[in-house]
Amino acid sequence: MKIAVSGKGGVGKTTIAAALIRSFAELFQRVYAIDGDSDGCLGFALGIPLVELSAIKPVVEMGEQIRKLSGDGAFYALNPSLEDDDLKEFIYQHGKINFMKMGDQKKGGSQCFCRENTFLQTLISTLLLDKNEAVIMDMGAGIEHLSRGTSRGVDLMLVVVEPSINSVNTANNVIRMAQDLGVSKVRIIGNKVRNENEKMFIEKSFQHQEMLGFIGFNENIWLSSMNPSQNASGSDLLEGMKEIREKILVEAGGSYRKG
Amino acid sequence: MKIAVSGKGGVGKTTIAAALIRSFAELFQRVYAIDGDSDGCLGFALGIPLVELSAIKPVVEMGEQIRKLSGDGAFYALNPSLEDDDLKEFIYQHGKINFMKMGDQKKGGSQCFCRENTFLQTLISTLLLDKNEAVIMDMGAGIEHLSRGTSRGVDLMLVVVEPSINSVNTANNVIRMAQDLGVSKVRIIGNKVRNENEKMFIEKSFQHQEMLGFIGFNENIWLSSMNPSQNASGSDLLEGMKEIREKILVEAGGSYRKG
Repeated sequence: MKIAVSGKGGVGKTTIAAALIRSFAELFQRVYAIDGDSDGCLGFALGIPLVELSAIKPVVEMGEQIRKLSGDGAFYALNPSLEDDDLKEFIYQHGKINFMKMGDQKKGGSQCFCRENTFLQTLISTLLLDKNEAVIMDMGAGIEHLSRGTSRGVDLMLVVVEPSINSVNTANNVIRMAQDLGVSKVRIIGNKVRNENEKMFIEKSFQHQEMLGFIGFNENIWLSSMNPSQNASGSDLLEGMKEIREKILVEAGGSYRKG
Repeated sequence: MKIAVSGKGGVGKTTIAAALIRSFAELFQRVYAIDGDSDGCLGFALGIPLVELSAIKPVVEMGEQIRKLSGDGAFYALNPSLEDDDLKEFIYQHGKINFMKMGDQKKGGSQCFCRENTFLQTLISTLLLDKNEAVIMDMGAGIEHLSRGTSRGVDLMLVVVEPSINSVNTANNVIRMAQDLGVSKVRIIGNKVRNENEKMFIEKSFQHQEMLGFIGFNENIWLSSMNPSQNASGSDLLEGMKEIREKILVEAGGSYRKG
């Protein structure tokens, strides 16, 4: 099961992705959490200290190492030999969560993130998973990861939407472009919903079968976003995510649930 | 005076940029408003109807037309002959606001937005302005427009920050990368500030001379984001932006104010 989390900037992609990753880690044996945003903060949201985060090597540099390990340039090595010390500089073990990041800081005016996106796409497409493993990838804001095709090869594209026209418009672009990429399922999560009116606004904007669920506006998340030590909690969200996780597993035919 | 508006996804870049553009249009004879976001909604925020927006040709297609007009491939034509009918398909006149957009919708998996960013950078760098003209450009979420160097050539980089660690971290990356690009001034606007505590959080995160001002959290903007007919208003913001505009003009040495 490979999942990408997308949506307009600021809708809460990373918060939702982090809660979903933690929720999947309760059931699955291993969850690969991939920060696919060049301005990403998924690792931080998962509670990995900033100093450790900056020490992790980005996956874009993983290629040569994998070729060394597997000999034939395939990504085979990412699975059976994942425990191998040779890949530990790219994969941060955080309980059952295996965290990776797409890219690293760059100098202003130096280059785009095309190479990082291309590598990530290859990685996702060729990664072989056991039934008790999942990949959850937090994408960059907006639609360029779709025009680039970074998320080609995921089974499910989640689009986070807040009660605003602009985030609904972005979601509709994501739906259209994900279809271009051959992503078979695209589902919406309504976020920051404060009342019935805002919920209805999102509900009316999509087809019934596209809606996966709603997460209410959370004052604690707003407040904790100023305090690094609380940033990892997000436990308020986990209850809401459980229902969403169940729906995802049902849609996947239940074949992934193993523990 | 060329200004770029940047920051983490969701901090309110487009709302702030639109209010600043309207505020500058009160004083200046012409304000070029450029949507530099591949997932942009600046035109919508300025009150341009969606159907008209989609009819505007993106500046990335402007090159050939300019070469035809100017003969030598320079961007000279953008200034004296701006009224020329030949460029009207790229520039939407909206009162004193001349709106342009960087790119257009793409098919999923088709391509990156590198070409668009490169063209935009050339356009900004070579655009000659009269003293009573300004350019205000709304950038994409995050930092790739900086690693690409899209905003090289602006006089002032504004960074919108909300009361969160993540948006402060992004702002610090913007400051670092803008220096790499040779952008001489980078200034912070605190947004969505609800109380003294949140204001202080932002103030403490930057040097005093970097702070340009604060915009309070605005319930009306939240509510109007669901209603297309109200989306153009944002008039609540204009008062706060006036003070910020004055500071920008003082920093620019007052030489730009003409009316």
